[in-house]
Amino acid sequence: MPFGFVCKKDFPLLCDLYELTMAQIYFKKGMNQRAVFDFFIRPNKKRVYYVMAGLEQLLYYLEHLRFGKEEIAYLRSLGIFEEEFLEYLSHFRFSGEMWAVEEGEIVFANEPLVSVKAPLIEAQIIETFLINTLQHPILVATKAARCYSVAQGTVLVDFGLRRAHGTDAGMKAARSAYIAGFAGTSNMLAGKKFGIPVIGTMAHSFILAHKNEIEAFKDFLAQYPENAVLLVDTFDTLQGVKNAIKAVKSMGMKHFKGIRLDSGDIATLAVQARKMLDNAGFKDTKIIVSGGLNEYKIKELLEQKIPIDGWGVGTELVVSADVPYLDCAYKLVEYADKPKMKLSPHKVTLPAQKQIFRFESGGEFQKDIIDLFDNSHEGSKKLLQKVMDNGEICYELPSLQQIQECFKHNITMLPKKFLDITSDEPYVPQIGKALQDLCEKLKTP
Amino acid sequence: MPFGFVCKKDFPLLCDLYELTMAQIYFKKGMNQRAVFDFFIRPNKKRVYYVMAGLEQLLYYLEHLRFGKEEIAYLRSLGIFEEEFLEYLSHFRFSGEMWAVEEGEIVFANEPLVSVKAPLIEAQIIETFLINTLQHPILVATKAARCYSVAQGTVLVDFGLRRAHGTDAGMKAARSAYIAGFAGTSNMLAGKKFGIPVIGTMAHSFILAHKNEIEAFKDFLAQYPENAVLLVDTFDTLQGVKNAIKAVKSMGMKHFKGIRLDSGDIATLAVQARKMLDNAGFKDTKIIVSGGLNEYKIKELLEQKIPIDGWGVGTELVVSADVPYLDCAYKLVEYADKPKMKLSPHKVTLPAQKQIFRFESGGEFQKDIIDLFDNSHEGSKKLLQKVMDNGEICYELPSLQQIQECFKHNITMLPKKFLDITSDEPYVPQIGKALQDLCEKLKTP
Repeated sequence: MPFGFVCKKDFPLLCDLYELTMAQIYFKKGMNQRAVFDFFIRPNKKRVYYVMAGLEQLLYYLEHLRFGKEEIAYLRSLGIFEEEFLEYLSHFRFSGEMWAVEEGEIVFANEPLVSVKAPLIEAQIIETFLINTLQHPILVATKAARCYSVAQGTVLVDFGLRRAHGTDAGMKAARSAYIAGFAGTSNMLAGKKFGIPVIGTMAHSFILAHKNEIEAFKDFLAQYPENAVLLVDTFDTLQGVKNAIKAVKSMGMKHFKGIRLDSGDIATLAVQARKMLDNAGFKDTKIIVSGGLNEYKIKELLEQKIPIDGWGVGTELVVSADVPYLDCAYKLVEYADKPKMKLSPHKVTLPAQKQIFRFESGGEFQKDIIDLFDNSHEGSKKLLQKVMDNGEICYELPSLQQIQECFKHNITMLPKKFLDITSDEPYVPQIGKALQDLCEKLKTP
Repeated sequence: MPFGFVCKKDFPLLCDLYELTMAQIYFKKGMNQRAVFDFFIRPNKKRVYYVMAGLEQLLYYLEHLRFGKEEIAYLRSLGIFEEEFLEYLSHFRFSGEMWAVEEGEIVFANEPLVSVKAPLIEAQIIETFLINTLQHPILVATKAARCYSVAQGTVLVDFGLRRAHGTDAGMKAARSAYIAGFAGTSNMLAGKKFGIPVIGTMAHSFILAHKNEIEAFKDFLAQYPENAVLLVDTFDTLQGVKNAIKAVKSMGMKHFKGIRLDSGDIATLAVQARKMLDNAGFKDTKIIVSGGLNEYKIKELLEQKIPIDGWGVGTELVVSADVPYLDCAYKLVEYADKPKMKLSPHKVTLPAQKQIFRFESGGEFQKDIIDLFDNSHEGSKKLLQKVMDNGEICYELPSLQQIQECFKHNITMLPKKFLDITSDEPYVPQIGKALQDLCEKLKTP
C-alpha cells in the first residue's frame, strides 16, 4: 500500500517520461554540449508582479539528484532504455551552472527567473522537477504578497494545510506565505521544519463537545489564559461574544487574547463585537476573522474601517484560488553557443542567455530591462545571481527570516500602481536593444 | 536546508496547532468518550457529482500515526504542552472505527463520505490530515471523470506533474486521474509506485537542439520506431506535419505512432493534419493534442468531429482549474451518544452517525437517501462500508486497476442528466425522514 511519499531517493523519477527518452538519444548521439534553459512566467491579467520562492528547494534537488538501483531497475523494466544509457544514469550528477533571482525578490512576467547552463542531457532531465518546485511556491508567495499589500499592518496567518493539494503543498504554502509577510502558520510540521511561528485558535467541534459554549470557553481560558482566541460563531455570533465575555469575567480575568469570527456578515458582526468587547472593558482583545478569505475581502473590510486585527487565510491562499496555476515554462534558449527560439503561436521564447537589469531611484523600482547576459546597462542592478557552479551551491543561502525581510523591503520599493490588486494590466519588462536585434535576426528565415 | 519532504514520521505534526491544544484540554478533563465525525463536501454549482479517492492513503495514515521523540521534543519546545499530555501522545495510536465510501464510487454533495467513530481526542487529532488526504484526490478524480465522460473513448493521459502543487500533488493527481479512466501518466514515479502505465512524446527543446526539425524527427524515429509521437508545432504546425511524413518516409517506415499538436487552432490543424497523414498513407497514425486542455475543450472538439485520438491533459486537470478546491469539512456529529449539530449561517451540519442508501434500477442510479446509520431503506445499497476497526484495516483494499474498473462501471450507471458538464445544478441527495426529524428537534432550542 504505497502512500506516495516523495523523498530524496525519488528525485530522479519525478520527471516526465520524455525527459529520459530524449536524453537517451542525446546520449547515444553524443549531443551533450552546453545548453541554456530559462524558467519564466508568461503574462497573466490577474497578476502584475510575482514573488520569487522555491529556490532553496531547487538547489537541494540539483545537489542530491542521483539514480539509485531501484530507480534504474524500474527504468530497465520499461524495456525502452539501453544498458549503456542506464549505466550513464547510474553515475549521473548535475554538473552545471545556475543563475537565479533570490527568494523574496519581486519579479515580472517574461523575466528569466532561473537560468540553467549545463550539458544538454543534464539541463533537460531536470525540467519537470524544476518547474514543479518553483511554480507553486511562487504562486502562493505572490498570492500572500497581495494579501500583505492590503492588510495595513494587521496580522496574517496561514490556515491552509487542510485544503492544500497534498502534504508537500501544505508545507510549501506555509513557507511561501511566511516569505511574503505572513506572521505564522497553523501547520505544525512547517513550524518544526522551517521554524515558522505556529498559531491556532479552536474548532467548532470543541464547542459542540461541551455542554454549552460558556463551559467550552472556560475550559479553554483555564488552560491557555494568555493565548485563548475564542471561536464565537458556532450557534449565534453575537450571543457567542456575550458568552465569551461572560466566561472571561466569571474567571476573574481582566484580559483575554481574542475572539474569532468564521461566518456570517463579518463587517456588521465585527463592528458590533468590537463595541461589546470595548464596553465590557476588553479594549485590547483582538478580533480575528477567518473563512473564505482572500486579498479582495481583506481590502474591502479594511477600507470600510472594520475593526479587524488579524486574519486566518486558508484555502484561497494555498491554492491561489483566482489564479490556481502560473503559465510558466522552462525553455531551451541556447545550444552549443547558438541562440535558440521557439516560434509556436502565443508561445514565442526570448533566445540566448539573458540578465535582468533593474533600475531603482528614490527608493522605488523604475524599470526592468531584459537583455543579453553579457550586456551592461549603466546604473542598473543585475537580478540574476550565480547560485550554482559545477553542480555545487556557490551562494550563501539566506535564512527564511532574511528572505522575509528582503520581501518586506522590496514591496516598499514597488511603485503604487503595481500594488493595485484589481489591476488587469500585467507589467511586462522592456526588452533591451541587443536582445531585440537577436530576436529579429532569428525570426527571419 | 530542509526540503520539506513529508514521510511517515511527519504524520503527527501534519496538523493544525489547534487540534493538539484542544486535545490537551480533552485529555486533562477526561473528555474522551466516543465521538463521530463526518467528512463531506458542500454543494458547488460547477460539480454535479464527485468521484471518491484517497481512501487507501488515509487508512495508511491512521494505521501508522505515531508521535516520535523528535516530534514530542518539538511540541515541548512550544511551551504550551504539559508533560503528562506529551507522555500520552508518545503512546498515541488511533484505535477507532471508520466507515467509508469505496474509491472509484460516484458520490454527491452533503453525503458523509467518511465517518470516523473514535475516542474524542483521536477523532479530533486526525482532522487536518484527513481533509488534506481526501480533498485533492477527490478533486482531481472528479475533474478527470468529467474529461473521461466527454472523451468518447479517445485516450486520456495525465501530463500534469510539472504544474501540480508540489510533488505529493503530482503523485496523487496521477493516481486519481487513473482511477477516473485515464490510460496513463507522464509521471515516472507514479509509474513506479502505483504501477500506472507511463507515456510520453518529445519536447520543443528536442527539436531546437537539432539542426532542423526533420533531423530531430529522424533521430527519434530511429530510437523509438514503435513509439514515436512527433511534436510538430515548434515552428509551423502544418510544415511540421510535412516534415514528420518526410522523415518517416526517408527512413523507409510504413507506419508511425503519432503526431502531437500543442498550440494554435487545433480544430483546423487537426483536420488538415489528418488529411495529410491519410494522403501519405499513414491512416493509423494517431493525432494527439495537448496544451491548456480541459473537459470543455475536449467536448467541443469531439462534438465537431475533429479527428483527435488522444489527449495530454496537464495543468487544468491536476489543479482542477475551474474548481481548484472543494468546500469540504470534517465535523463532529455525535459525542457521548448525543447527536451534535452546528448552526453557523450556511454551514449547518447534519447530526448523528449516518448512512448513504443508494437505489438502483435498470442499470441506473435512481436516488440516494442520507439517513441515520441504523435505519434501513428496503431495496437500497449501503455506500458506507466498515474499513477500520480498533484502528486496524478490516477491509480488503482493491488494486488500483480494480478501482478504475469500479469507476468505469459506476459512470455507466449515472443518469445522463448528471453527465452534463455545463450543468450548474449540483445534485443533492434526499434526507431520510428519521434524520429530518432529528434535525428539527435539535434546531428547536
